[in-house]
Amino acid sequence: MHFSPLIDQLMDSLRCLPGVGPKTAQRMALHLLERDRVGAERLAQAMLKAVELVGHCEKCRNLSESPICRLCESSHRDESLLCVVEMPADVLAIEQTGSYRGHYFVLMGHLSPIEGIGPEQLGIAQLLSRVRNSAVEEIIIATNPTVEGEATAHYIVEQMRALPVKVSRIAHGVPLGGELEYVDGGTLVHALSGRRSLR
Amino acid sequence: MHFSPLIDQLMDSLRCLPGVGPKTAQRMALHLLERDRVGAERLAQAMLKAVELVGHCEKCRNLSESPICRLCESSHRDESLLCVVEMPADVLAIEQTGSYRGHYFVLMGHLSPIEGIGPEQLGIAQLLSRVRNSAVEEIIIATNPTVEGEATAHYIVEQMRALPVKVSRIAHGVPLGGELEYVDGGTLVHALSGRRSLR
Repeated sequence: MHFSPLIDQLMDSLRCLPGVGPKTAQRMALHLLERDRVGAERLAQAMLKAVELVGHCEKCRNLSESPICRLCESSHRDESLLCVVEMPADVLAIEQTGSYRGHYFVLMGHLSPIEGIGPEQLGIAQLLSRVRNSAVEEIIIATNPTVEGEATAHYIVEQMRALPVKVSRIAHGVPLGGELEYVDGGTLVHALSGRRSLR
Repeated sequence: MHFSPLIDQLMDSLRCLPGVGPKTAQRMALHLLERDRVGAERLAQAMLKAVELVGHCEKCRNLSESPICRLCESSHRDESLLCVVEMPADVLAIEQTGSYRGHYFVLMGHLSPIEGIGPEQLGIAQLLSRVRNSAVEEIIIATNPTVEGEATAHYIVEQMRALPVKVSRIAHGVPLGGELEYVDGGTLVHALSGRRSLR
């Protein structure tokens, strides 16, 4: 069944949101129209503004509405550390732990020849020139432990070979609260080979 | 951690959508900005237009951008049947079955003295005058089988007492595919008392 054209259009457009299927889109559209028109209007304006004004930080490539993002501009961060991640969400995840005070470099993806994503799309040249021309002493590679993430990490390590910086990879192993029984084999292999001496 | 103000604002505004918490809002905002700015813009425009132009049908009170909605205007519907439901989503659910060809009346809620929703807010007077001045022969009350829905159904039946129309309530019982073992007691009581003779 079809509602009026404008409501159909709204339901349809809502499906551009990740994880929103036809049933959820319907529920959202009706909720907004029946109960929260003020919220809907605020959301629409926020979307238009963000789409228009948010670009990428010239230094770290993270999403930012200013040429240099807040994090890169901050004088409270450790200039000697540079953490390389795939996506803005990864920056958020690490920041939320509150345990890292260095800077970031956001690749905005990972190497994927099939999708036409090579070193150029990931700004690898920019990363290298940043390492050359700054006080960075250690690069922490925090790409995802997936095939593409590992390949990307490997490529970056190769490129860094000639530079006088430490290059490290975040640890992979059994997550806290995880049970050995339910952890996959690949993770266990990592956990064993990455074991640390206790004394 | 905070992103730039515009992204924070977008994440915040997305939380007006039902079922969207901080984590989902973050995922949605980043998805839109990283991958679907065209979709975000289309969604924002659809929202603004719907919020501005969608009102209620003068005849059935359902959401509609025209004074009389498509369903009420259609000449292919059975004028003798009027189904009373609580919300627009209920109309959709019944229409999707394809088994009902009558008209609707949408209360836009149920009686709820605590929330200040009385007969006036539900348009009961409008419902009565519609029944009086039209070819309606049977009112099918399809409010939800909740305490408030039942109270609303009961109230409507009382109000219809003097009118020369049939008044019926949709059947309640064990849902198809449901197993007796897992159906709640109240539903079973309904299923038993509403039993139908097979021969």
